[in-house]
Amino acid sequence: MFMGEIMEFKQIVQQRYAARKFDGRKVPETTFSEIVDMTLAAPTSFNIQPYKMVVVRDSAMKEKLAVAAWNQPQITTCSHLIVFCANTQLMAHVDKLALTMPGATQYIEMMRGFVNGLDSEGAKVWAQKQTYIALGFALNGAMSLGINSCPMEGFNSVEFAKILNLPAHIVPTVLCTIGYADAPKGTKFRFDKSEMVLDK
Amino acid sequence: MFMGEIMEFKQIVQQRYAARKFDGRKVPETTFSEIVDMTLAAPTSFNIQPYKMVVVRDSAMKEKLAVAAWNQPQITTCSHLIVFCANTQLMAHVDKLALTMPGATQYIEMMRGFVNGLDSEGAKVWAQKQTYIALGFALNGAMSLGINSCPMEGFNSVEFAKILNLPAHIVPTVLCTIGYADAPKGTKFRFDKSEMVLDK
Repeated sequence: MFMGEIMEFKQIVQQRYAARKFDGRKVPETTFSEIVDMTLAAPTSFNIQPYKMVVVRDSAMKEKLAVAAWNQPQITTCSHLIVFCANTQLMAHVDKLALTMPGATQYIEMMRGFVNGLDSEGAKVWAQKQTYIALGFALNGAMSLGINSCPMEGFNSVEFAKILNLPAHIVPTVLCTIGYADAPKGTKFRFDKSEMVLDK
Repeated sequence: MFMGEIMEFKQIVQQRYAARKFDGRKVPETTFSEIVDMTLAAPTSFNIQPYKMVVVRDSAMKEKLAVAAWNQPQITTCSHLIVFCANTQLMAHVDKLALTMPGATQYIEMMRGFVNGLDSEGAKVWAQKQTYIALGFALNGAMSLGINSCPMEGFNSVEFAKILNLPAHIVPTVLCTIGYADAPKGTKFRFDKSEMVLDK
């Protein structure tokens, strides 16, 4: 692709791959900011947006985090590390949403009922699921600007929370490393459509 | 947008919204097939692809499912209903993947160790999380072709499994209705970036 060329979404998803290593160059902050904006456009159930993007740029911090992530080279070689965290204080977000929806009493009560029906593990898992949607938006958002990425689950969430000094309601869930790949795209293996799709 | 115009990813995520109702028109099968292809390009952890897209086109089936989804109008008015299901038979996929990776013994053993370390609830939740990435690809894939969609969690998974006659290891997780919106895009409310992003 040429710089500035617009990629079709079809091209974006085909060209995106999990970069196993980056070359250490910094993604310009204006570009990173665009990736964040596209990510935050991701939908979440009830629009509760129960997550936070914790962004790490500092090398020393990345070194510490890498130890809690099997020393995978993406952590220390990336430009920006996004730690997608579940935000389990769901009702705080519902309260804020309610302020933006005067008159939508029934809908707001439905949201409150949903949140009240979750126990603490349920709230965490539900919020975590939503972060995976945002993760996908970040991966494609980066690729749409010619930037590589790698989604990663292989890290110790408790250790990450400690190292990043996060409050208890912010739960590290999945990582998105962003940068310039230092490893070529391999073959993207996918199971046959016939194995993945069931027509009913 | 004009037909055939290429949208930037930035435009796709801005224009996408949760359509509350569709007009009942059918999305051409060639277009739907492209959406499926883009969806299946979504990454999953270890590339295990632990999900199935169950696709419903039949009106009578949609009517039955709507009853188990609070009679939300998207179900009966959409063109194609995708039921994203977790596929909890993880080791079956690992075994198939292993056949495509001769020599990658260590990596395959790592995958097996990961899967063996999950109990049945853990396997389900983990597989479910992966479906949310694919969901986002479907939503953006549809919009990239000018097609509307609505992601939905409000349905009874057990009832859906019964109505669709799914085996126990295929667990309905999240819905993606696809079609032509019969309701305009409202305002897309998002919390301020400062509330969603934490720089460390």
